[in-house]
Amino acid sequence: MEIITSKDNKKVKEARKLLTKKYRKNSYLIEGFHLLEEAVKAGSEILQVFVEEEKFDKLPSALRFDLRLQSLSENGQRNEVEMTEKLSVNMVSREVLKSLADSDSPQGIIAEVKKYEAEIDFSGSKYLVLENVQDPGNVGTMIRTADAAGFSGVILLGNTADIYSSKVMRSMQGSNFHLPVIQMESGLLFGQLKKAGLSVLTTTLSANSVSYQSVKAHRFALVMGNEGAGVSEEAVNQADILVHIDMPGQAESLNVAVAAGILMFSL
Amino acid sequence: MEIITSKDNKKVKEARKLLTKKYRKNSYLIEGFHLLEEAVKAGSEILQVFVEEEKFDKLPSALRFDLRLQSLSENGQRNEVEMTEKLSVNMVSREVLKSLADSDSPQGIIAEVKKYEAEIDFSGSKYLVLENVQDPGNVGTMIRTADAAGFSGVILLGNTADIYSSKVMRSMQGSNFHLPVIQMESGLLFGQLKKAGLSVLTTTLSANSVSYQSVKAHRFALVMGNEGAGVSEEAVNQADILVHIDMPGQAESLNVAVAAGILMFSL
Repeated sequence: MEIITSKDNKKVKEARKLLTKKYRKNSYLIEGFHLLEEAVKAGSEILQVFVEEEKFDKLPSALRFDLRLQSLSENGQRNEVEMTEKLSVNMVSREVLKSLADSDSPQGIIAEVKKYEAEIDFSGSKYLVLENVQDPGNVGTMIRTADAAGFSGVILLGNTADIYSSKVMRSMQGSNFHLPVIQMESGLLFGQLKKAGLSVLTTTLSANSVSYQSVKAHRFALVMGNEGAGVSEEAVNQADILVHIDMPGQAESLNVAVAAGILMFSL
Repeated sequence: MEIITSKDNKKVKEARKLLTKKYRKNSYLIEGFHLLEEAVKAGSEILQVFVEEEKFDKLPSALRFDLRLQSLSENGQRNEVEMTEKLSVNMVSREVLKSLADSDSPQGIIAEVKKYEAEIDFSGSKYLVLENVQDPGNVGTMIRTADAAGFSGVILLGNTADIYSSKVMRSMQGSNFHLPVIQMESGLLFGQLKKAGLSVLTTTLSANSVSYQSVKAHRFALVMGNEGAGVSEEAVNQADILVHIDMPGQAESLNVAVAAGILMFSL
């Protein structure tokens, strides 16, 4: 297999566009062996892989199997090849790999993964709603925490950070492959939550809300808001319960991902 | 007052060194009006201020008072000036200010603050211990959470990120001005904790630990470890109780700052 050493290679240039949101219509990039294994396990379609030559033997076994088939194909065995003809593996130089990565020290592999339209039917008991949460690290961490806490899905409202960005991908650590994460319009979401009999728990700093420790809700959607501005008026109006975290100390607020973690693990 | 427009200005160059840890022996930089107000409120010594001309009227009132005295001094009133002769205010261009900031869009003010040797006597009931926590955002967020949860102090062990770095400062949001944060040698710390009758609660992912929900400890130090490697063998050996968070979902672990938040707010 030839090694791509130029950042101007056409495939590399096309793939690099996926670092920008507007080009991520159908696919996105993931970085590192852990995420690639999670993607393969979840049955996501891997469109192509860029791997440093020396990291080739670290490819997840499912992918290595496909590659074996592919090399057989070069010997003329067409039937087996059809299973894998969508997968293309590109060996690249370290420099080319870095040009596709968002982190300073990428792990040696980048994969292009086809987007999958997840669905949520609201038959579960716990959902997390992120409304206009802007920091990618916060968004990713909250999805990871929702996964750890056994939530049934995450719904993104408004201009919440794009989960297909490298930073969100990195902090999710593969949780998007474990539970459905979808973007929705708020009117539609609140309608569906009511129809499904889920209580809307909106977090707020205001005094006319109850401490989370006194909340008893068995099936609910927890709404977390923007880092600076908090939740919207709509999320307050749609709430069945307004909830806050009592803070005995001097800090004025908690980081939104920490607050979400405390709530998800105690409600 | 003259406006400094060159990044090569001697004062600016000296101050810029404080962005690097090895130069932060006696002082450090803070960014933004909120942190400056917190520093002034806490009685920290502000050595000098770099402010954009148009942001001058936003200076905290305590500082503006000093400035008024300083301008009086130019009319010859020496007695009142002695109170403030250590404070130097520098008006700078946007470009110069940016060269002193770690963030992309600094708020228009940077202050140099004298380091203060905090002390902890372990007479309180709740302490947070960070051992080799490397991400500055995680360190800052955990100190902010400890502040919100009413903890009495934070102790840093090993190569935990320097709290005087811009990134830790930003995520602490001033909590270092609310509670003592000190660096200690681990042998000394564990000795003092035992002497003070505080239980050592070490967090771990291992199975031979108890779920945090069954822990009853009234006076304790909670030990959080490195993001990848977890806590050290020493922290495990010194533990009175090994504690973990049960995760009903699929994620393999929680972000360390989220885990610390859950524990600090429920123990």
